Amino acid sequence: MPRIVQKYGGTSVGDVERIKKVAERIKAAREEGNEVVVVLSARAGLTNELIARAKGLCAEPSERELDQLLAIGEQESVALMAMALHGIKVPAVSYTGAQAGIFTDGVHTKAKIRTVDPKPVVKDLDLGRVVIVAGFQGIDDDGQITTLGRGGSDLTAVALAGALKADVCEIYTDVDGVYTADPRVVKNARKLPEISYDEMLELASSGSKVMQSRSVEFAKKFGVVFEVRSSFNHNPGTIVKEEVAYMEQVVVRGIAADKDQAKVIVSNIPDKPGSAASVFRGLADANVIVDMIVQTAGRHGVANLTFTVPETDTARAVKALEPVLAGIGGGQVTMHQHIAKISVVGVGMKTHSGVAATLFQALAGAGINIDLISTSEIKISVVVDLDRADDAVRVAHAAFGLDKL
Amino acid sequence: MPRIVQKYGGTSVGDVERIKKVAERIKAAREEGNEVVVVLSARAGLTNELIARAKGLCAEPSERELDQLLAIGEQESVALMAMALHGIKVPAVSYTGAQAGIFTDGVHTKAKIRTVDPKPVVKDLDLGRVVIVAGFQGIDDDGQITTLGRGGSDLTAVALAGALKADVCEIYTDVDGVYTADPRVVKNARKLPEISYDEMLELASSGSKVMQSRSVEFAKKFGVVFEVRSSFNHNPGTIVKEEVAYMEQVVVRGIAADKDQAKVIVSNIPDKPGSAASVFRGLADANVIVDMIVQTAGRHGVANLTFTVPETDTARAVKALEPVLAGIGGGQVTMHQHIAKISVVGVGMKTHSGVAATLFQALAGAGINIDLISTSEIKISVVVDLDRADDAVRVAHAAFGLDKL
Repeated sequence: MPRIVQKYGGTSVGDVERIKKVAERIKAAREEGNEVVVVLSARAGLTNELIARAKGLCAEPSERELDQLLAIGEQESVALMAMALHGIKVPAVSYTGAQAGIFTDGVHTKAKIRTVDPKPVVKDLDLGRVVIVAGFQGIDDDGQITTLGRGGSDLTAVALAGALKADVCEIYTDVDGVYTADPRVVKNARKLPEISYDEMLELASSGSKVMQSRSVEFAKKFGVVFEVRSSFNHNPGTIVKEEVAYMEQVVVRGIAADKDQAKVIVSNIPDKPGSAASVFRGLADANVIVDMIVQTAGRHGVANLTFTVPETDTARAVKALEPVLAGIGGGQVTMHQHIAKISVVGVGMKTHSGVAATLFQALAGAGINIDLISTSEIKISVVVDLDRADDAVRVAHAAFGLDKL
Repeated sequence: MPRIVQKYGGTSVGDVERIKKVAERIKAAREEGNEVVVVLSARAGLTNELIARAKGLCAEPSERELDQLLAIGEQESVALMAMALHGIKVPAVSYTGAQAGIFTDGVHTKAKIRTVDPKPVVKDLDLGRVVIVAGFQGIDDDGQITTLGRGGSDLTAVALAGALKADVCEIYTDVDGVYTADPRVVKNARKLPEISYDEMLELASSGSKVMQSRSVEFAKKFGVVFEVRSSFNHNPGTIVKEEVAYMEQVVVRGIAADKDQAKVIVSNIPDKPGSAASVFRGLADANVIVDMIVQTAGRHGVANLTFTVPETDTARAVKALEPVLAGIGGGQVTMHQHIAKISVVGVGMKTHSGVAATLFQALAGAGINIDLISTSEIKISVVVDLDRADDAVRVAHAAFGLDKL
C-alpha cells in the first residue's frame, strides 16, 4: 500500500472548521488506498500568544521552559485532528514528537533531529490507522522536550517520510507550489512542475519564502522527494527532488528577490594579510551571516571590503566591527540599506554559458545599475537599487524566457 | 533540609498576575529553608474550553485523545510557573507528569497511579531547584499520556509527597481549611485545626466539597499527612492525618449536607431471595452509585426498597431498573428529588454513645422530619426535606457544641 506523509501548517488548523476540512482531505487520501501519516503545526497565532504570556512572566524565558511551553501547541493540533477524523469515522491516533520517536540533540528551541524511530508509527499504520504527529518537536536523550526552530514542522515531515520510506511527502502551504518568480511581481510567472534540491536551496537562500533551507537540506541528504502544494485547492504542486539529466535542459529555473539585505562597506583597511580574515571572524563571532563578498584593493596600501548582511543584523554587524577595525589599525564602516539582491537560479547553468551576459544585458537594457555580483555553480546574484528590484525580476524573467513553457 | 510539596489549583494560575503571586509564595517557602516541589492544575476554564473544542469535532471524543488534549493544560501551567520563578531569580524546572515519573495504569481519563519514581525530582532538588510538576497526568506502560480524573492534581501532590517522603504536603484551595459545617450555612462554624483521614473521607462522601475522596484515601493508604489551606491568605489550614487517641475526645468533628442526591423507591417487588440483588446488580452495571439503602417488607409477599442516588444519575437509574423489574416479576419505581442528606461525622462516635439520640432529638425539636437513616462506625446520615436541610445542619451543629472550641 502506498505510504504518504502530509504536512499542514498553522493556518490549516486555525479553527474547528478548518480542522474539519483538513480531516476530509486526509480521509480522501486514505480512501484512495494510501497509508497516511499527517504532521501538524500549532494553530496560527497560538505560539505568539504563548510567547507573549511567557515574556509577561520573565524578560528572557529559559529556552528549556519555552520548549516545554510551545510544544503544547502541536499537541493540541494533533489531538483535535484525531478527534475530527474519528468524527467522520476514520481510525486515527495522535502522537507527540516524543511518542513518534523524533529524537533530537539537546539544543533547546533549535534542536537538530538525530534519528527517527519509525516503529511506533508503523505499528499503528499496520492497524489501519491514520497517524497524526506533532511537528516542530522532539525529545532528547534526557527525556526533555525540544523544539526544532523555524520551519520545524516541515523538517518533521521530511524526516518522518525518510524514516518511513514514504512514497510521497506533501508539504501543504498557503501557496500552491514554487514559481519561476513571485507571481505578485511577475504577472506571467509560471508554477514549476519540478525543481531540484539545489535549485530550491538557492531560491530559499535568495529570498523565496516557500520553505526553510534546512528542511530542503535534510530532504536532499536523505533523498526524500517532496511536493509543495496548497491546502486550499487540489492543484498539483511542485515536486522537489534530486536533479536528473533532463533538468539541465532548462538553463534558468527561477528568479528570486531578497529585499531584506543591507550592504556594508568597510573601507580603508590596511591592505595586509589577515585584515579580511579579522573582519569576517569578528562578524562570524557575532552570528552575522555574510553574503556576496567583494574585495577591492585601494591606493596607498589600503583595501575596501563590500558585502551584504541581513537587514536585521546591521546594528550587530557595526558593533562587531568597531573593535576589529581598532585591532587591525584603521578603517571605516558605511551601511546601505536601500538595496535588493536578485538571484537567477538553475542547474542548467552548469552546462550552458552566457547566462551572466544575458542577465547583465537585460538589466542594462532596462537602465538598472548593477552594484555587486556573485556567482555559484547554479546561481548568479546581483545587487541593485531597491526601487528597481521588481523591474529587475521582470526583465530577467522575460530575458530567460521563463514565461514560456 | 525539610521537603515540602505544595499544590495550587486552577484559579491560582488563572492569569499572569496570579501566577506571579504564587511564585512569590513558592519563593518564600524556599527562603525559609525548604526543598520545594509544586504541583499545578490547568488554569481555570482551559479544560472546559478544550473539551468544547473537542466536542465541536466529534460528539464522543476518544478518551485517549482527550487525555492527549487535556494534558496540555497543566503543561502550560508548569512551564509558565517555572518562568515566573526565573523572573524573580529562583532556580526552577518544570516537569510533565511523565517526566516526573508518575506511572499509571492505562485507563484513560480516570487512570490510577501505580508508582511514582521520585529520582528525577530528587535530582533537581539536590541541585537546589524548585521542581514544578504538572498535576492530573501521568504516563502508562506504553508511553501513552493518561489523566487521573476529577481531583487528579490533589492526587498527584499526595502521591509525590509520599514518594518523596516530604515533611509537609500543602493543598492550596479557595477555602482556608475544613470547617465544622459549611460557613455559608452555619455562621459560627469553626475551622478545624486537624481531622482524621476517615473523618475527612466521610465528610467528602457526604457532600463536603473540599477534596475528592480518592486523594484522601491515597493519603491514608500511604500515611501522607497533608494540610488544606488557602492560597489567598496565610492562615493556618486544616491538617489531615491518621487519627490519634486524643481525637476521639471530640465526639463529632463536623456536619455535611449533600443536596445533590435523589431518593428512589422501588415498591411492590416480589419478596423473595435475589430480588434486591437483581435491583442493585442492574444499578451497578449502569454505573449508578447507590447510598443509604433501606428495605422494608410489605404485605402480601411484596417488599419495598428505598435508596439514594446522585441526582445526575436518576435518569440512568430509572432506565436500568426497567428491565430488572420486568425480569423479577413486577414492581414500580418512584423518584423524589427534593431531598438532602445530612451527615454527622466523628471518630469519637466509636467510643461515645448517644450521638444518634442527640441528633434525632435536635431535629425533632426543630420540627424536621427524618426520612431515611444510615450509620457507619463514624457517621450518622439522615435524609430530610431539601427545604429544611440548612436548618438541620444548624441545629445539629449547635446540638453537638461545634461552635465552641
